[in-house]
Amino acid sequence: MASLAAPLAKLIEQLEQLPGLGAKSAQRIAFHILSQSPERVGALAEAITEARARIHECACCCNLTESEECPICSDPTRDRSVICVVGDPRDVLAIERTREYRGLYHVLHGNLSPMDGITPEKLRIKELLHRINDNDIQEVIMANNSTVEGETTAMYLSKLLGPFGIRVTRLAYGLPVGADLEYADEVTLRHSLEGRSQM
Amino acid sequence: MASLAAPLAKLIEQLEQLPGLGAKSAQRIAFHILSQSPERVGALAEAITEARARIHECACCCNLTESEECPICSDPTRDRSVICVVGDPRDVLAIERTREYRGLYHVLHGNLSPMDGITPEKLRIKELLHRINDNDIQEVIMANNSTVEGETTAMYLSKLLGPFGIRVTRLAYGLPVGADLEYADEVTLRHSLEGRSQM
Repeated sequence: MASLAAPLAKLIEQLEQLPGLGAKSAQRIAFHILSQSPERVGALAEAITEARARIHECACCCNLTESEECPICSDPTRDRSVICVVGDPRDVLAIERTREYRGLYHVLHGNLSPMDGITPEKLRIKELLHRINDNDIQEVIMANNSTVEGETTAMYLSKLLGPFGIRVTRLAYGLPVGADLEYADEVTLRHSLEGRSQM
Repeated sequence: MASLAAPLAKLIEQLEQLPGLGAKSAQRIAFHILSQSPERVGALAEAITEARARIHECACCCNLTESEECPICSDPTRDRSVICVVGDPRDVLAIERTREYRGLYHVLHGNLSPMDGITPEKLRIKELLHRINDNDIQEVIMANNSTVEGETTAMYLSKLLGPFGIRVTRLAYGLPVGADLEYADEVTLRHSLEGRSQM
């Protein structure tokens, strides 16, 4: 594309590096940006740098926050004896949306995947062990993804937590609500049979 | 989502305004940005403001360019007697990729759509008429989208260009290459019958 101006080509190149954006969508967004007022474009650029500059990991649970401790960790009404371990900050949002859980969280920032170079040291596992050591924790709920990496991480952590003598649990497997039995894969179906409950 | 830090919520809100990005993709990109180094995030923000600040419309064809005149308009090897009229700067790229066309372009920056408030004054039509008045143009090729808006724009312009006595042409309609006849809509099929050529 010889006829693309350099700053535009550079912008498209930057946008293409964002997750989920291919060449076509990056181009579309770049041209959209050029069609906006300088004020609106400035607001977008500022939101990007501001978010990166002001948001960091919570000193306690490693979730992303603007303050020293995140709002959940500093909420006195939360149950401080339960920690729910998740892989990603978005998983906290997903669980919070259920309005079911009142304990604390711990965000690992990833799942174990030695093939991709994600070894235990890359995750916030040390921080989790410190928390369990220093506080009176009754239960740790593993809420990792039900992928190979998530399972591996949950398994690894549950072994690591063994010596602490705490109750370690795992989210239930089964059919998603509203699912057609016909389309469920056999592993999910097997899990939902094993975990069946009295009606 | 009460537990989302303000700068993060603001970033997601800004990203959601970009074309093709829904709530989920905006969130995904925002979290990705937070996981990057400040240098990489700075480069993205700078590419956005730089592109907007340095790119403007070509004084001649209204295509987006960094210089006073775009590289195509200032290329002495291009045929200056033919103008290809397109709706969007991306259409110039699409036609350039064919390596078939050696004339100049004119970018209207939209297609007529009175329902959406896009009236002739909103498009670069005045600039096109000036070009045709001041230069020795032999042919104007209408390369508008084959949508209702594109058709309306091409029709409107061809009437406007009537008094100049120039050849006004339109891109051919027909089956896209590699298409299954079975799936072609009847209007396209009718056009491709009308425009059939000797083998």
